Amino acid sequence: MKAEIIAVGTEILLGQVVNTNATFLSEELADLGIEVYYHSVVGDNPERLESLLKTADQRSDLVVLCGGLGPTTDDLTKDVVAAHVGQRLVEDAAGRKELETFFTRAKREMTANNLRQVLVFEDGNALPNETGLAIGIFYQSPTTAFLLLPGPPSELRPMFLHHGKALLQEKFPQQEQLISRVLRFYGIGESKLVTQLAQLIENQTNPTIAPYAKPNEVTLRLTVKTQDEKSGQKLLDETEAAIKEEVGEYFYGYGEENSLEAVVVKLLQDKGCTVTAAESLTAGLFQATLANVSGASQIFSGGFVTYAKEQKEKLLQINPNLLAEHGVVSEACAKAMAQNAREIIGADYALSFTGVAGPNELEGQPAGTVWIGLASEKEVVAYLYHFTRDRSYVRHSAVMAGLDLLRHAVLKK
Amino acid sequence: MKAEIIAVGTEILLGQVVNTNATFLSEELADLGIEVYYHSVVGDNPERLESLLKTADQRSDLVVLCGGLGPTTDDLTKDVVAAHVGQRLVEDAAGRKELETFFTRAKREMTANNLRQVLVFEDGNALPNETGLAIGIFYQSPTTAFLLLPGPPSELRPMFLHHGKALLQEKFPQQEQLISRVLRFYGIGESKLVTQLAQLIENQTNPTIAPYAKPNEVTLRLTVKTQDEKSGQKLLDETEAAIKEEVGEYFYGYGEENSLEAVVVKLLQDKGCTVTAAESLTAGLFQATLANVSGASQIFSGGFVTYAKEQKEKLLQINPNLLAEHGVVSEACAKAMAQNAREIIGADYALSFTGVAGPNELEGQPAGTVWIGLASEKEVVAYLYHFTRDRSYVRHSAVMAGLDLLRHAVLKK
Repeated sequence: MKAEIIAVGTEILLGQVVNTNATFLSEELADLGIEVYYHSVVGDNPERLESLLKTADQRSDLVVLCGGLGPTTDDLTKDVVAAHVGQRLVEDAAGRKELETFFTRAKREMTANNLRQVLVFEDGNALPNETGLAIGIFYQSPTTAFLLLPGPPSELRPMFLHHGKALLQEKFPQQEQLISRVLRFYGIGESKLVTQLAQLIENQTNPTIAPYAKPNEVTLRLTVKTQDEKSGQKLLDETEAAIKEEVGEYFYGYGEENSLEAVVVKLLQDKGCTVTAAESLTAGLFQATLANVSGASQIFSGGFVTYAKEQKEKLLQINPNLLAEHGVVSEACAKAMAQNAREIIGADYALSFTGVAGPNELEGQPAGTVWIGLASEKEVVAYLYHFTRDRSYVRHSAVMAGLDLLRHAVLKK
Repeated sequence: MKAEIIAVGTEILLGQVVNTNATFLSEELADLGIEVYYHSVVGDNPERLESLLKTADQRSDLVVLCGGLGPTTDDLTKDVVAAHVGQRLVEDAAGRKELETFFTRAKREMTANNLRQVLVFEDGNALPNETGLAIGIFYQSPTTAFLLLPGPPSELRPMFLHHGKALLQEKFPQQEQLISRVLRFYGIGESKLVTQLAQLIENQTNPTIAPYAKPNEVTLRLTVKTQDEKSGQKLLDETEAAIKEEVGEYFYGYGEENSLEAVVVKLLQDKGCTVTAAESLTAGLFQATLANVSGASQIFSGGFVTYAKEQKEKLLQINPNLLAEHGVVSEACAKAMAQNAREIIGADYALSFTGVAGPNELEGQPAGTVWIGLASEKEVVAYLYHFTRDRSYVRHSAVMAGLDLLRHAVLKK
């Protein structure tokens, strides 16, 4: 089964947007056992899109199009594909209802062009959009199948994962299926992980092992080709065990849509523990990250953002002499912040973050110098980190390091 | 002058690598006044690459190829393009010398396949590789020019910037250059903005106006084709004025790398004002967003995350009777949070956020219901919002709305 991906959008050809949709879809289609032979990008131009469609129709069994489903006259993917396959565009009733609900709830006036977003092919399948307004479309001509998805990744991904994927599996069952398992690692860089696993990666053909570096973490995707689920899972188990023998200490969880914060919130829920934080350089990012996870209110009631020294004294009641003596970028300050936050809030654990986000140095310490404190019933500790890159990366690195510290503390409990 | 970019590499089609080279080159070519009409990606397969080349040769004046210049048998770009244009491959003397120096210094034996990396076209130009070993190639056939660049961005970028760019400018001097200006809008959806500007967008050819929706904001990129900078800027000024006549109230700043928080922090700095916040559903995200901006410490000293009711009472000293009577998702709670935060911290402005992030409802109110309070020397107000989509989007929407409220309050001062 040969597939290709066509992204429609002048902004990609101008270099304003990176075509990450093609990357995501390629990975997903590979999982389904569907081979992607081409990616193309074309601007918001009907003639050039039609000419690409003609070529694609001849060389591929499945053509996935991304972008151009929105409300403006630029958004022409539906019209061009409909004309290409000779389909009439009709309104999707469910989509129309969602659209009206959206505008009613947002108390905004719905302009007529919005209705373009809920047009679908007369003989196609409509794919609901859980995070936006433009409805997706699947349509099978006698020779070729077409899947039309919205351009924004925040809409395309859930639409594909929750609707497109199952549809493709149903329409194109593959003899050999691909099963994937994603292992997530924190605390080890991609090149080091790959070096430690070099032999394994080299000698391993089924499952394959593909490393991906993400900001502050690395994932390994194991993909096995198998005729049945059970023997596939067994092969994955064996490879996972071999990987963990080498780098198991850095492993923290499974799955593409998982995260370190989700694992930590779940762990605290399971143990019936609570956490708070006092944040200086991260300025609320640690607490906001915990609250990304639905159900965080069970383990988190609130905390402090003490960006300036005066607020460390006022809100956290830290002795001004301690700060004068040690400075704010110090072990003593990190420990005091964590300890006092824990006591004031009345939580089982408290994290503290104090350091230099950059770009400028602070108290003679270079950007990236960060102390993270952890207070529990048992002890108050603090660790020194030297993070690199820019301000935003330093703050993100600190949050991830804090989550990992907390995870290890709760695991040991 | 029509150009297209072809990336060669199976790893891109498997979703293991994002095609950022196409993004980089598109932006660079646009700056040179060269229009990119297509991106394509093809695997390490000679027949499919040749078939793409045939199409590209017909429809484009310049074909930029990335990847496939390395030493392994997978690396076939040079061979396929050489055969396509009928060029003989010969060794580049300077490249060969560099290659030998590299292996001598690294004290490694040079395997024979490495010599493939210094092969160039007999009648082409060789582009030195400052950060790698594979030499680039430029070649002009009677109809089409071909530029072959290495795949790793760390090699491709310097090769293009230091050698490819000047070569293209020399071979294809453009009479006209492209100048862009980005206008940023908050508080208006893409479809409404486009409707209000429909006539302008439709009738406007130079500059062109391209709308782009981002989470909770819209940008318009104006791009003018011009023979000189000055008359280009004048045309941009005129179009900007016409746009602002229609939707000026939603305009907040310029530039691709600008943000609402950067504008707000700058504004507070200019006016010499400070801000704090008390956050419930956003759980620190507003404060963390302010601190994205370097220099935020001048206008922000700290604040509160009061996720649970008990912390609203404890940290913000809100009367429990008020919360019992009105609930936490209420105007009264939002006002009390803002007012008390402002007093405790001693800031000029305080924002408060209380509401339902979702997915579940709270106090009988649906997900997306959010009260945002604003306390200043002059007054304490609160506004009700109904945000949509998922938990993360509701929280981001609340932060953006808070920033905008603050911006308007400070502007009025």
